[in-house]
Amino acid sequence: MRTTTAWQSVTPGTNALTRVTIERRDLRRDDIAVRIDYCGVCHSDLHRIHGMLGEKDLVPGHEATGTVTAVGAGVTGFAVGARVAIGTIVDSCGECAMCLAGQENYCYDRPTTTYGGTDRVDGTQTRGAYSREYVLREKFAFHLPDGLDSAAAAPLMCAGVSVWEPMRAAGVGPGTRVAVAGLGGLGHLAVKLATALGADVTVLSRGTAKERDARSLGATGLLVTSDDAQVSSARGRFDLILDTIPGDHELTPLISMVGLDGTLCVLGNPLQAGPHLWALGAGRKKLTSSGTGGLRHTAELLAFCAEHGITADVEVLPSSAVETALNRLAAGDVHYRFVLDMSDLDIPTS
Amino acid sequence: MRTTTAWQSVTPGTNALTRVTIERRDLRRDDIAVRIDYCGVCHSDLHRIHGMLGEKDLVPGHEATGTVTAVGAGVTGFAVGARVAIGTIVDSCGECAMCLAGQENYCYDRPTTTYGGTDRVDGTQTRGAYSREYVLREKFAFHLPDGLDSAAAAPLMCAGVSVWEPMRAAGVGPGTRVAVAGLGGLGHLAVKLATALGADVTVLSRGTAKERDARSLGATGLLVTSDDAQVSSARGRFDLILDTIPGDHELTPLISMVGLDGTLCVLGNPLQAGPHLWALGAGRKKLTSSGTGGLRHTAELLAFCAEHGITADVEVLPSSAVETALNRLAAGDVHYRFVLDMSDLDIPTS
Repeated sequence: MRTTTAWQSVTPGTNALTRVTIERRDLRRDDIAVRIDYCGVCHSDLHRIHGMLGEKDLVPGHEATGTVTAVGAGVTGFAVGARVAIGTIVDSCGECAMCLAGQENYCYDRPTTTYGGTDRVDGTQTRGAYSREYVLREKFAFHLPDGLDSAAAAPLMCAGVSVWEPMRAAGVGPGTRVAVAGLGGLGHLAVKLATALGADVTVLSRGTAKERDARSLGATGLLVTSDDAQVSSARGRFDLILDTIPGDHELTPLISMVGLDGTLCVLGNPLQAGPHLWALGAGRKKLTSSGTGGLRHTAELLAFCAEHGITADVEVLPSSAVETALNRLAAGDVHYRFVLDMSDLDIPTS
Repeated sequence: MRTTTAWQSVTPGTNALTRVTIERRDLRRDDIAVRIDYCGVCHSDLHRIHGMLGEKDLVPGHEATGTVTAVGAGVTGFAVGARVAIGTIVDSCGECAMCLAGQENYCYDRPTTTYGGTDRVDGTQTRGAYSREYVLREKFAFHLPDGLDSAAAAPLMCAGVSVWEPMRAAGVGPGTRVAVAGLGGLGHLAVKLATALGADVTVLSRGTAKERDARSLGATGLLVTSDDAQVSSARGRFDLILDTIPGDHELTPLISMVGLDGTLCVLGNPLQAGPHLWALGAGRKKLTSSGTGGLRHTAELLAFCAEHGITADVEVLPSSAVETALNRLAAGDVHYRFVLDMSDLDIPTS
């Protein structure tokens, strides 16, 4: 076993960490050892130190950069001295649909998280990058490109990729109307990245205090969400809203500003919107609803149905049997749609 | 005024309707009068008769086919004798972003619904197609294509377009993996339409009773949602699940069967999932979340950041100041990310 120095949580509920000596495993064939130079402080570190997942004696840290100090016998991608970056996961099953799709973060057999996870080989708890050394499979380490500052690049590994993936999934590019709610670690990177992708970016904030910062990061404007008139005037304005606000807040005003077929992506506090949002997050899934149709799609549907000979399977009843139809519909006894024949309304009642 | 015969609700809570004589307006320049031949019975008729929206004396009916009997002086698209179809809306503002996009159903000034709406000219309540005659603007009527049976085509106008639009929005086509939950009016048309679009369609049902029907409608199979093993084995299988189940039910098992970047579209009972889903439905908006990143996207992000010179704006602290960093992060006092410099861990403690 190797040892290194690390910062470990003491008691859930406090931000005090204590300096401890911890063990790192001896290098396996495909492992590299990394001297951690810098590690970002993520909001989720705070939640987990406070016991969100019931953990104790936690060494946090999952956005780090460093330098390779040793390599296992089978390592081919890294040499001693290479600059590397480490993110939120350090292993996965490698065989499920998500791993095969390059989405190891959604591994069906649970990805091994950089801290608080369970090593897939020896079953020990993983301990994070608030430490001087980290050991991981080379597959899960990244070369840090030349020209990126080691300290300033560290937050790319969690905050950065957390906003990058949903922007890529939503097809953000030139002309996309993106709004970013919350201008913290995730938010400020979202503004920079969306701007670099060519999007037109608006920051959503409770006040005007951050307007100058927003513009300097690349946003074309700031919308004050506490101003109902501004929210109303922005109805349907955005193709994508990235919500990075960490605290509880209402989603409905944000939804009102999403345009047709647009997306609200909640990243800062997905638990607040209940289990649905949490389940959606485990695989970047979308929840939507829809209400009947517009003229264009309705005409399109009728043409499609004529071309393909599609109509409903119906049971036709005289309109005077409407109560029967409604009763049977309420009881689920319909196969598949009742249609009323209105011609009996021409017959005068006696 | 013209008069016609119609079926009107009596008391909220009962399915009994009473036959009444109602007025229809004299034809305006762009109006047509339609003899209603057939009208489908929609589940929403049932809800509204029962007082869901607090309405009384309602004439329901919003999926109808009929024959033009008279036309206003300015009508250019329809002649007397033409076969027409009428759907859920009969007017809209015509000027907002939704109307200009052909999505009059999401008109920002509220579309005028076929029944229970308010006429934009005279302010009277609209009364539906459970009646022998309907009068509407020609813009909101559709030619019923030759070859489509008038009775069987009526449900296309609500049930049909309600599943057509979200399928089109989701890009359903050859090879798309579509699941349809609930095999009623909407569900059976969803199976037919998705199949005709080239999708691979699975019906989700509580039991096997509907398997034969599902296959005869075009589905390639039926998955029993009460069988946990079947649900588990279908994890991530579908690109789009159309949920047309009218009653309360859990969404989480359905979400589990949605694949990466796939969509659960709740149509049958959007109120159950709370105000968010209701708000999403008003404009076919999507709610999603996401969790960090996979290897592929993370590598892509680092390359993109190197190309564009993007890193985080960070405040670097010695790692021994981690408690300060966490305290300030908890207080929102960060601009924009703390990064810990781990080199101080090399200095032995005294």
